[in-house]
Amino acid sequence: MTFSKVTKLAIMGGVAASISAVPAFAQEAEFALAADTAYIFNTLLFLLGGFLVMWMAAGFAMLEAGLVRSKNVSMQSLKNIALYSIAGIMYWLIGYNLMYTGVDGGFIGSIGTYGFDPVGLDGADAAALLDTGYSTASDWFFQMVFVATAASIVSGTLAERIKLWPFLIFVVVLTGFIYPIAGSWQWGGGWLSEMGFSDFAGSTLVHSVGGWAALAGAVLLGARKGKYDAAGNVSPLPGSNIPLATLGTFILWLGWFGFNGASQLAMGTISDVSDVSRIFANTNIAAAAGVVTTIILLQILYKKVDVTIVLNGALAGLVAITAEPLAPAVWQAIVIGAVGGAIVVFTVPMLDKLKIDDVVGAIPVHLFAGIWGTFIVAWTNDGASYGTQIVGIVAYGVFTLVASFVVWFIIKTVIGLRASEEEEMMGLDKAEVGVEAYPEFAT
Amino acid sequence: MTFSKVTKLAIMGGVAASISAVPAFAQEAEFALAADTAYIFNTLLFLLGGFLVMWMAAGFAMLEAGLVRSKNVSMQSLKNIALYSIAGIMYWLIGYNLMYTGVDGGFIGSIGTYGFDPVGLDGADAAALLDTGYSTASDWFFQMVFVATAASIVSGTLAERIKLWPFLIFVVVLTGFIYPIAGSWQWGGGWLSEMGFSDFAGSTLVHSVGGWAALAGAVLLGARKGKYDAAGNVSPLPGSNIPLATLGTFILWLGWFGFNGASQLAMGTISDVSDVSRIFANTNIAAAAGVVTTIILLQILYKKVDVTIVLNGALAGLVAITAEPLAPAVWQAIVIGAVGGAIVVFTVPMLDKLKIDDVVGAIPVHLFAGIWGTFIVAWTNDGASYGTQIVGIVAYGVFTLVASFVVWFIIKTVIGLRASEEEEMMGLDKAEVGVEAYPEFAT
Amino acid sequence: MTFSKVTKLAIMGGVAASISAVPAFAQEAEFALAADTAYIFNTLLFLLGGFLVMWMAAGFAMLEAGLVRSKNVSMQSLKNIALYSIAGIMYWLIGYNLMYTGVDGGFIGSIGTYGFDPVGLDGADAAALLDTGYSTASDWFFQMVFVATAASIVSGTLAERIKLWPFLIFVVVLTGFIYPIAGSWQWGGGWLSEMGFSDFAGSTLVHSVGGWAALAGAVLLGARKGKYDAAGNVSPLPGSNIPLATLGTFILWLGWFGFNGASQLAMGTISDVSDVSRIFANTNIAAAAGVVTTIILLQILYKKVDVTIVLNGALAGLVAITAEPLAPAVWQAIVIGAVGGAIVVFTVPMLDKLKIDDVVGAIPVHLFAGIWGTFIVAWTNDGASYGTQIVGIVAYGVFTLVASFVVWFIIKTVIGLRASEEEEMMGLDKAEVGVEAYPEFAT
Repeated sequence: MTFSKVTKLAIMGGVAASISAVPAFAQEAEFALAADTAYIFNTLLFLLGGFLVMWMAAGFAMLEAGLVRSKNVSMQSLKNIALYSIAGIMYWLIGYNLMYTGVDGGFIGSIGTYGFDPVGLDGADAAALLDTGYSTASDWFFQMVFVATAASIVSGTLAERIKLWPFLIFVVVLTGFIYPIAGSWQWGGGWLSEMGFSDFAGSTLVHSVGGWAALAGAVLLGARKGKYDAAGNVSPLPGSNIPLATLGTFILWLGWFGFNGASQLAMGTISDVSDVSRIFANTNIAAAAGVVTTIILLQILYKKVDVTIVLNGALAGLVAITAEPLAPAVWQAIVIGAVGGAIVVFTVPMLDKLKIDDVVGAIPVHLFAGIWGTFIVAWTNDGASYGTQIVGIVAYGVFTLVASFVVWFIIKTVIGLRASEEEEMMGLDKAEVGVEAYPEFAT
Repeated sequence: MTFSKVTKLAIMGGVAASISAVPAFAQEAEFALAADTAYIFNTLLFLLGGFLVMWMAAGFAMLEAGLVRSKNVSMQSLKNIALYSIAGIMYWLIGYNLMYTGVDGGFIGSIGTYGFDPVGLDGADAAALLDTGYSTASDWFFQMVFVATAASIVSGTLAERIKLWPFLIFVVVLTGFIYPIAGSWQWGGGWLSEMGFSDFAGSTLVHSVGGWAALAGAVLLGARKGKYDAAGNVSPLPGSNIPLATLGTFILWLGWFGFNGASQLAMGTISDVSDVSRIFANTNIAAAAGVVTTIILLQILYKKVDVTIVLNGALAGLVAITAEPLAPAVWQAIVIGAVGGAIVVFTVPMLDKLKIDDVVGAIPVHLFAGIWGTFIVAWTNDGASYGTQIVGIVAYGVFTLVASFVVWFIIKTVIGLRASEEEEMMGLDKAEVGVEAYPEFAT
Repeated sequence: MTFSKVTKLAIMGGVAASISAVPAFAQEAEFALAADTAYIFNTLLFLLGGFLVMWMAAGFAMLEAGLVRSKNVSMQSLKNIALYSIAGIMYWLIGYNLMYTGVDGGFIGSIGTYGFDPVGLDGADAAALLDTGYSTASDWFFQMVFVATAASIVSGTLAERIKLWPFLIFVVVLTGFIYPIAGSWQWGGGWLSEMGFSDFAGSTLVHSVGGWAALAGAVLLGARKGKYDAAGNVSPLPGSNIPLATLGTFILWLGWFGFNGASQLAMGTISDVSDVSRIFANTNIAAAAGVVTTIILLQILYKKVDVTIVLNGALAGLVAITAEPLAPAVWQAIVIGAVGGAIVVFTVPMLDKLKIDDVVGAIPVHLFAGIWGTFIVAWTNDGASYGTQIVGIVAYGVFTLVASFVVWFIIKTVIGLRASEEEEMMGLDKAEVGVEAYPEFAT
C-alpha cells in the first residue's frame, strides 16, 4: 500500500517532480481531488473550531456573571457581549494584518486593507487558493475568535469596579494592537518563531497575554471595597450564581476542543485528523486532571471542596495543555493538567496576600497556568527547549505588562478607570446599565 | 491547472457531454469520488447547520425565560420546548411537502406522504441520490429547525398573558400551514422565486413571517396588565434574569452560523466552502456591529447602556444580514448590521407608543430588521432589485398578517386567547403549569 | 452509473479481488483517495459526536442543578464536573481496554496499557490505520464521553443526601469496571453480541446501566427527609430553578444528535452519512413525540402541565429511540418516543408509591424508557428478536443491579453513604462544599 504517500505529496503541493510514471489525466484528476478535498476539510476545521471558540465568549460571560455579586451581573453580561463584538471589528480593521502580513522574522506586521476570497471562486482564483489550502475567511474567523478570548480574561479580573467605557477602550487597544503585535512574533512568523519558541494554541499568546493585561489593570485599579481590610483580612465576596459559573466552565471546556483541536490548522490528511483526535483526548484529560487534583487538594487542605476553585482547576488544566496538546502521551497530559490545577489551589491565596483583587481567579488560571504550560512544552516536544520557552514567556510578559500598563495609565489619567465609591456600593448595574440582573430576587 | 473546472462539472452533474478525451474508467472513478465526497460534505453541512439551528430553540427559551417576570418563567420554558416539538411533527406531517413538492412557480405545494432515504442506501438508490447531492433526511432536518425559529418569535412577543393551549394551536397552524405555504413562494420555487426575489437564509421567510404572526397576535391579545396606563405612561415590567437572556443571545448567535452558513446548501466544492466561510465572517461582524451601534446610541440618548437592548441589537444585526450574508464585503456587512441595531433602539419606544406590548422586543428585531435586511439585498447582490424585494416584503406581510389574524381570531372566538386577570396577576406558572420557576427566590 | 459500487467496495477494503480491469496506478490512486477521505470523515464523525456528547455532561449538570433545592445546587454542580472528569481518567486507565480488547465472545476484556496513534502518522502506520478506518484517539474520545453519561444518571437520582466522597468512589468503580464489563458483552463483541442482541447507541448499555446503578443506590440510601411521611403522603420538594432544568434538557437533546448519530460509527460513504441523517431526524422526532405526549397526558390527568415532567418526557423519548434510531420509519419513531413520554407520566408516581426517592426522575427516564426502547427494537429491526432483546435487558439488569448493590453496600459499610440529618437540613452546599449556590437569593 504505497498510495498514501503519493496522496500526501499531492496534498502537500510537491506534485510534479515526484510522480512521472502516471498518465497525464489520471495525475491531474487525482491531485485535483486530493487538493480539493483537503481544502474543504481544512476550511471546515476552521469553521468548526471557530464556532466552538466563539461559544467560549458565552462561557466567559456565564462564568463571570456567576462569580460576581448580583448587583454587577448585568454589567458583566454587557461587557462580555461588547468585548466579543469589539474584538471582531478591531481584528478586522487592524489586527489581522498587524499579526500576519509582512512580519517575516520581525516584530510587527502591517496596516492595510484586505478582502476575503471572492464569492463563487473558480478557475485561477480557486487554483491559487488551493495552494494556501483553506479559505481566507475561515482562517480570519478562527483567528478572530481567539482575540476575543484574550479580552474576556481581562473582563473577569477587573469586574465589579471598572467602569464600562474605560474597559471598552482598553479592549479596543488590546484587540486591535497589543494582542496582534505580540501574536505576530510567533504565529505571524516573527522573531520568536524564528528562534524556535513553541506555543501550539496559545497558553502564552492568548491566555498569558490576557492575564498580563488583566494584572496590569488590577494593580492600577485597586481592589473592590470591602475585599481587604487594613488588618489584612480577606472577605470572600461570594459569587451570586454557582450553577451559571459551572455552565460557563462547561462551555469553555467544550469550546476548548475547537481552540486546541483546530489549531492543528489542517485535517485534510490522515495524519492531521489523527493529530486533531490526539489533541481532543489530551485536552479533555488535562482538564479532568485539573478537576481531580483540585478536589483532592481542597479536601486535604480545607476539608471542604470549594466548587469555584474546582471550576478554575478545570480551566487551569485546559490552559496548561494549550501550549502543547499534541505531543504529550496521555499520562503526560494528566501531569500537565494536574499541575495546572494545583497552581490554582496554591496561587489564589497568594494573590490575596498581595491584595491583588482578581474577581474570578483569571490570573492564576490564565497567566500562571499559561506560564506553566508554555514552559513544560520542552518536556514532550523535542523541537522545543526550556531556554527558548523562557525567552518567549518573558518577552510576552514584559511587552504585554508594559504596553497594558501604559494604556491603562493613559485611560485612567484622561477619563478615569473606576466607578465612584457610591456607584460601587449600589452596583454597576444600577449605575451604568440601568437594568438589574435579578430585580425580583436580590436582597 | 484545469482540473477544478472538470471536478466542478462532475459535481454539478454535467458530466457525460463535457469530457470525452479521458479513458472510460478514469472518468468513472473520478466522478464517483467527486460526487461521493461532495454528497457527504453537503449532507454534513445540513447536519451541522441543523444541530446549530436546533440549538437556537434553546436560545429563544433562555432569552424569553430571562426577559419575562419570574411568575411566568416556567410557562415560557414549557412553551418553547413545546413549540419546537410541535414544529417538528407538523413539518413532517404536512409542512415539508406543502413547501417543496410540486410548487413549480405557483403558490402552494402538495399534501402527501413521503419517506426518507432507505437504510443502507446502495446501487441505484445511491446513484439517484448522488444527483440530488445530499441526503433527504438531512435536508428535512435542516428545513425543520427553521420552522421552529419562526414559532419561537411568536412565543416571545405574546408572553405573560396568552394561555398555553391557544398558543399551541396557533403553532400547529403556523408550522404546518402558514410558514410552509409562504415559504413555497420562494424556497419552494414558487412565484416570488420566479420573479427574482432574493432572501438567502430567511430575513423575510423566517424572521418577518414570525414577526408578522406575532404582531397579529399582539394586537388581538392586548397588552399585559400594568404595562400601559390610561395617561399613556409605560411601565417597564423588567425581565427576571438578565444573564439567562444574555446566554440566550449567545446561543442564538452561535446557532446563526448554522442558520446562514448552511443555507449555502452545499460545501462539496472549494467555491461553496469558501462561500460558507464568507457567510460566517459576515454574519458575525453584522451582529458585532449591531452590538456596538446600540451601545453607542444608548450612551448618547440615555446615558445608560440597557443590556437588554444591546442583546436585541446583536439579534437585529443577525436578522438583517440573514437575507444576504454572502455578497456583502465586510464593511457592507457592518453597515447592514449597524442599521439593524439602530432600528431596535428607535423602534422599541415606537411600539410602546402604539401600545403594542412586545415582551421581548421580537417585533423590532425579527420583523423590522428583517424588512431592512431584505430590502438592502439589492445593494450588494447584483441579481436582486429593490422593487422585487419590496414586492416580496409586502407579499409576505400581507399574507402572514391576514392569515395569522384569521387564525388568532378563530382561536380567540372559540376558546379564548388570554388568561384571566386573576391568572395573569398570579402568573401563568401557578395558573397553568403548576410549577414555580424559582420557588425559593421570587418575592 | 456503476461507479458507486466500485467506490464502496474500495472503502470497505474489498479491493484487490473485485477489480482487475483497471490500470494499476489508477486503481491505487482511486482507493487511496477513497480510503483517505473515508478515514477523515469517520474520524471527524467521532470528534463531532464526541464533543456533542461531552456537552451532555453540562446538560445533566444544569438539569440536576435546576431540579434540586437551592441548598444543594453547588454540590450538584461539583458532582457533575467531578464525575465527568473521573470517568475520563478511569476509562483511560482501565475501562477502554476492559470493554474492547480481547473480549471475543466472552464476558470481559483485558487490563493493560495502550497508546494513541503516534503524532504525524505516515507510511506503514498510516496504512495500518486506514484498515481500521478511523483514528484510535477519536474512537477513545467518543467512547469515553458515553461512560460519563451513565455516571450522570446516578448523580441525579441520589442528589440532596449522598455525601461527596462515597458518590465519587462509586463513580470510580462504575466508570472503570461496571460499565466497561457490561459494555464488553455487546459493543466489545462479547456473548450478547454473538447472540444477536441489538442496542444501537445504548438505551440499555448506557442509560439502563446508569438507571440500575442509580436504583441500587436509591434503595440503600433511602429517601430525603421530608419526602415521604409515615401516612404515605408525598411532598414534592420542588426544584429551585426551572429554566436551568429546561436549558439542561435542551443541551441533552442537542448532545443526543452526537450520541445517536455518531453511533453509526462511520460517515465515509453515501450510505453511512445518509443513515446518520435518518438518525438525526428520528432522534429529534422521538423526543418531540415524548414532549407532545406528556403535555396531552398531563392536561388530561391533572389539568396542569408540569414542565418538569415534560422535560423528562423529551428525555424519555430520546432514551427510547436510542436503542434503534436508524431502522424506524418516522411514524414509528414517533410511536417509540411517545410511549417513552407516557412511561414517565405513569411511572413517576409509581416510584413515589414505592418510596424510592429519585430526585430528578432519572429512573423512569433512563431505566424504564431504556427498557422500552431496547425491547421494541425488534419491531423495526429485522435482525433483532424480542426474545434476545429480553435476554439482554435482563442480563444487564441483573449484573448492574447486583454489582452496584455490592459496591454501594461496601462503601456504606466502610465510610457511609449519607449526610447526617443535620447536614441534610442545612444543605450539602454548606456542609461539604462551603459555597452557597445563590448566597444573595435563597431564603
